[in-house]
Amino acid sequence: MIRVGIVGATGYGGRELIRLLALHPDAKLVAAASTSAAGERLESVMPAFRKLSDVVFESFDAKALTDKCDAVFIAVPGRESMRIGADLREAGARVLDLGGDFRLKDPTAFAKYYKTEHTATHLLPECVYGLPPFYRIKLKTTQLVSVPGCYPISAIFPLRPLLDHVSTSIPIVIDSISGISGAGRTLNEAYHFPEMNENLKAYKLGVHQHIPEIEQEIGHRAMVQFTPHVAPLTRGILTTITFRPDAAVDPAAAYRCYEAEPFVRVLPSGELPEVKNVRASNFCDIGWAMDERTGNLLLVSAIDNLMGGTAGMGVQCLNIMFGLEETAGLLYGGMAP
Amino acid sequence: MIRVGIVGATGYGGRELIRLLALHPDAKLVAAASTSAAGERLESVMPAFRKLSDVVFESFDAKALTDKCDAVFIAVPGRESMRIGADLREAGARVLDLGGDFRLKDPTAFAKYYKTEHTATHLLPECVYGLPPFYRIKLKTTQLVSVPGCYPISAIFPLRPLLDHVSTSIPIVIDSISGISGAGRTLNEAYHFPEMNENLKAYKLGVHQHIPEIEQEIGHRAMVQFTPHVAPLTRGILTTITFRPDAAVDPAAAYRCYEAEPFVRVLPSGELPEVKNVRASNFCDIGWAMDERTGNLLLVSAIDNLMGGTAGMGVQCLNIMFGLEETAGLLYGGMAP
Amino acid sequence: MIRVGIVGATGYGGRELIRLLALHPDAKLVAAASTSAAGERLESVMPAFRKLSDVVFESFDAKALTDKCDAVFIAVPGRESMRIGADLREAGARVLDLGGDFRLKDPTAFAKYYKTEHTATHLLPECVYGLPPFYRIKLKTTQLVSVPGCYPISAIFPLRPLLDHVSTSIPIVIDSISGISGAGRTLNEAYHFPEMNENLKAYKLGVHQHIPEIEQEIGHRAMVQFTPHVAPLTRGILTTITFRPDAAVDPAAAYRCYEAEPFVRVLPSGELPEVKNVRASNFCDIGWAMDERTGNLLLVSAIDNLMGGTAGMGVQCLNIMFGLEETAGLLYGGMAP
Amino acid sequence: MIRVGIVGATGYGGRELIRLLALHPDAKLVAAASTSAAGERLESVMPAFRKLSDVVFESFDAKALTDKCDAVFIAVPGRESMRIGADLREAGARVLDLGGDFRLKDPTAFAKYYKTEHTATHLLPECVYGLPPFYRIKLKTTQLVSVPGCYPISAIFPLRPLLDHVSTSIPIVIDSISGISGAGRTLNEAYHFPEMNENLKAYKLGVHQHIPEIEQEIGHRAMVQFTPHVAPLTRGILTTITFRPDAAVDPAAAYRCYEAEPFVRVLPSGELPEVKNVRASNFCDIGWAMDERTGNLLLVSAIDNLMGGTAGMGVQCLNIMFGLEETAGLLYGGMAP
Repeated sequence: MIRVGIVGATGYGGRELIRLLALHPDAKLVAAASTSAAGERLESVMPAFRKLSDVVFESFDAKALTDKCDAVFIAVPGRESMRIGADLREAGARVLDLGGDFRLKDPTAFAKYYKTEHTATHLLPECVYGLPPFYRIKLKTTQLVSVPGCYPISAIFPLRPLLDHVSTSIPIVIDSISGISGAGRTLNEAYHFPEMNENLKAYKLGVHQHIPEIEQEIGHRAMVQFTPHVAPLTRGILTTITFRPDAAVDPAAAYRCYEAEPFVRVLPSGELPEVKNVRASNFCDIGWAMDERTGNLLLVSAIDNLMGGTAGMGVQCLNIMFGLEETAGLLYGGMAP
Repeated sequence: MIRVGIVGATGYGGRELIRLLALHPDAKLVAAASTSAAGERLESVMPAFRKLSDVVFESFDAKALTDKCDAVFIAVPGRESMRIGADLREAGARVLDLGGDFRLKDPTAFAKYYKTEHTATHLLPECVYGLPPFYRIKLKTTQLVSVPGCYPISAIFPLRPLLDHVSTSIPIVIDSISGISGAGRTLNEAYHFPEMNENLKAYKLGVHQHIPEIEQEIGHRAMVQFTPHVAPLTRGILTTITFRPDAAVDPAAAYRCYEAEPFVRVLPSGELPEVKNVRASNFCDIGWAMDERTGNLLLVSAIDNLMGGTAGMGVQCLNIMFGLEETAGLLYGGMAP
Repeated sequence: MIRVGIVGATGYGGRELIRLLALHPDAKLVAAASTSAAGERLESVMPAFRKLSDVVFESFDAKALTDKCDAVFIAVPGRESMRIGADLREAGARVLDLGGDFRLKDPTAFAKYYKTEHTATHLLPECVYGLPPFYRIKLKTTQLVSVPGCYPISAIFPLRPLLDHVSTSIPIVIDSISGISGAGRTLNEAYHFPEMNENLKAYKLGVHQHIPEIEQEIGHRAMVQFTPHVAPLTRGILTTITFRPDAAVDPAAAYRCYEAEPFVRVLPSGELPEVKNVRASNFCDIGWAMDERTGNLLLVSAIDNLMGGTAGMGVQCLNIMFGLEETAGLLYGGMAP
Repeated sequence: MIRVGIVGATGYGGRELIRLLALHPDAKLVAAASTSAAGERLESVMPAFRKLSDVVFESFDAKALTDKCDAVFIAVPGRESMRIGADLREAGARVLDLGGDFRLKDPTAFAKYYKTEHTATHLLPECVYGLPPFYRIKLKTTQLVSVPGCYPISAIFPLRPLLDHVSTSIPIVIDSISGISGAGRTLNEAYHFPEMNENLKAYKLGVHQHIPEIEQEIGHRAMVQFTPHVAPLTRGILTTITFRPDAAVDPAAAYRCYEAEPFVRVLPSGELPEVKNVRASNFCDIGWAMDERTGNLLLVSAIDNLMGGTAGMGVQCLNIMFGLEETAGLLYGGMAP
């Protein structure tokens, strides 16, 4: 039984992780650090877990967590995991970061998009980007995983097998729609229920921090024009990608690389993904359409941002790191309805 | 590994059962009968389960299902499970019915509230009402389980420990609010998205078929005035019960009977249940308040109608029937958010 | 053209009032006071009103507002309108308060339920409760109107014509379900979108400040057991009332009093109200069912909490006070969908 | 008082029109034709309008409608208004069609995208596309108006002032997100509440019938790659447009053409539109961002699909046709919340 710890367990990523670990056959939550809740019982702070956990929150202590855990997840707000990750690595822990601090290999890009200097650049070379289809071998032995961002997961999966066919001169247009849990638990008038219910909006046009992450993972093959939107639902991301391919592209053939992937599902020709089919699951569903009239190829993907887009992806990485069955604790079907 | 079959797998109750079985360590879906989908692959009909199931739908054949399954769930629309249940019992299957046909011990009440004659009254004596805290011993050996209705589960759990204190002369007022999945998959203008979104309504005042079920399971101690409402959410039931108790009632003491129950959670005094804390879980959360001014006791409960209110409860009964760990495959925490 | 001012225009009640006044043929918003937004243009603070208003927010000055307005609405948070109302009345303004401070005739009840002493008790005798069907004559001449609370409106309309038939010994059970705009604009984790979406809960059992207001307006004929609930929608209240009537009651006859009321609609026997039919309108729809089995009468009502429950009701009072057509600017049908 | 008739009043476009006419100072609904509801009272069929209308549905009779109405709206399902429009014009009525049959000037494009031959091509030359900023003069005298489609309105408004700066070789990418009322009242499993709530999807990639309409109204300056999406809300469209402009573009200057438009609002630089600010209003809000890194210009617009996108736009055309104040009955602010 792999002993798991979490730093920052009360945010939405942390909660989802706790939920998944409760049903994991080979891993178990044994420690949770929280600044605000230290000393309190987890089930009192999060009543959804009553009768499921006897964990008591503790203050963050890298050494103590490292001693009692085989792996430690970091689920703190952006720009705080650099420090916590460095402390944990220093203490010798195997670390999986659900935040964005270790995703960009280029500290300059980090500084530009995250508006702060990176304080743990020494860890970037050893850090593995936690997208199993492309980094599975490295994940087996790494001590530090950076779990990808939710929007990038939804974009990289459909794009990566087609990179050889992407025009390098025209930016790839990526329009994503996300549920509100992606914005986290922090109160914000924009996400007060009466403000966001029955609402739609776009935000961070051209400046979202997931832009350099996507471009890094498509090998800087082309620039991406990424526009995130929010819609009135809690979970899920739908991403539509438009680009001009070369004439020879055959998406069905290119996507055969995913046939053996347990959590990437390429739909039959003519079918398109919907969030409901991946809700509360670890799957990424992919569909596509070629528009002969315009010459564009359209890709559509769907994920659950908290599970396939954060905590489930983290557990999949954990399973690989510790030699467990890769799908252990993750075989949830889409919760439809 | 217990081999499970389902009749009527494409409805919402059936889908939820398939979802739960995919993660069950000791039970596995091996057969699914469907009139409309016979011959098709389950994953084609329900894309949420792609890469999770290789089951192919078959036509209903009681003998064939009984041969290949240790247990058969019935998840067909109301008034059809009488016949299917009788056929399956005749063939020797152990049966769990998620519908309402076998819940009422009194065929007269059935005829009145379900507007049809009961055609399998010979099975009523052997049928066990599948509410584990009260029928656990009988469930171990029965061949036929009637899984309770979702509204009744939300009412019986909070009421039953307090029955000795209920006034017999004043009807107990039970106002429930349900998500729309409770109305099933059948199209209905009332539940067309633009009609039901941002809407609230009450329905079936005084005539809902769950009234006699609740009254049966509270021992006909009092009449219940049950008014169901629907609100614009997919899953969940919140039930508020108002009644005049005798002076001596101590809810905290009465509810101690649930301390060892794995899926009934009585909240600390002053806290009230919310649907989010039980969403996608098998739990029933219970809170209460005594109003000294009016002399009324108020009970509030929350369940997920599809899981704790249908399929999860069915799996809990299955676990008991086959001597499995009672919580196997069910330790989902509330999915919040 | 009646010149209207608002104090506290940025809350949800104030916004709705501004929206209604934009289409009113005989009244016009000429001044808006706001502590936080003084000096800013209304259309900058509330982009929904761009190109509709040239009002600039000013600091609250009772004298200045009184001079330039024929009527002043107060739409500030609870417990603040006592002071503002007193200042405005002192300056000679005709005042309509959308808050709760002037609704209770009994300052002791106010202190108990609002947890603060009333500081303007001298105004209570002159204040008219703004429910036109019952106070129309007094509204014509009053200088101070207290617009009723949203829950009370939904309860008093269906109850009041039946008061002679209500049992005085058994509390009337009133279970209401409200949209989230009723909780106002103030940020609150409970109403953060991912916390409240797909959620249901009850709150303030037995202690809600609308209890004494309802009891006052039903002439203390019986105690009310009022339990408010919230559901994931923005606007609307559905109220279900259960009580034991005497044998002689004939709701259809009793409700004939509403035939000439422009905004109270009693549905034909067998039909029940839904929030969608009153959404964004000033109507209160009422339906009922007699349960012969239990002896209870069930009343169901629906209103839009911001319009028929707050701002629309306020405009109706304004129309009466100033001798305008009572329905002027209010003939919105239910916005369905 | 302009006397207005509607053919097909029970659909969502027709309902919205009835709602708007109830508050219109100079126009009044006097007749409504419906195949399914002929002989029934409008307020019985649509309870949202109880106490607001005494209209009784009649069978469609072009001559009778023409006699009693100054203008007739057609709000029937697609491909049916060709015939009805021809009959009404033959009888001499002034007609406003809310459907798509008369929008395309090119019958070949109609046949391709609407999958049927156009049967009233003789009316196409006289028909005016009802987008006031661009066709105001023609609208004053025309006998036949084709009210634009909801998606095209949201795309044409932001695009048209910038056409001189659009690259002609790269398709313009238009990704729109719509509420579900856009799909109409017809039952469809895809829009059953539990299927669509908490769901997102794209549909009709590259084949939507609004593509030729947008291309026609941007003068075939470039092809459009239009991908519509649906999200779980009832009303509203948010459209994001991505294209490569020439270097000289200055959106603020180009958009000055809308300064005097009553219902087009260009936001200050740096602000983006949201559906909530146009909800239940006739406005189209427009924002933009230039991405220097990619060289793309991004335009974002928001409308209410039923009002600014259908019925409100129709009333604006009616006002122009009959010489009324253009904004009469339309000065609704965005309903936020």
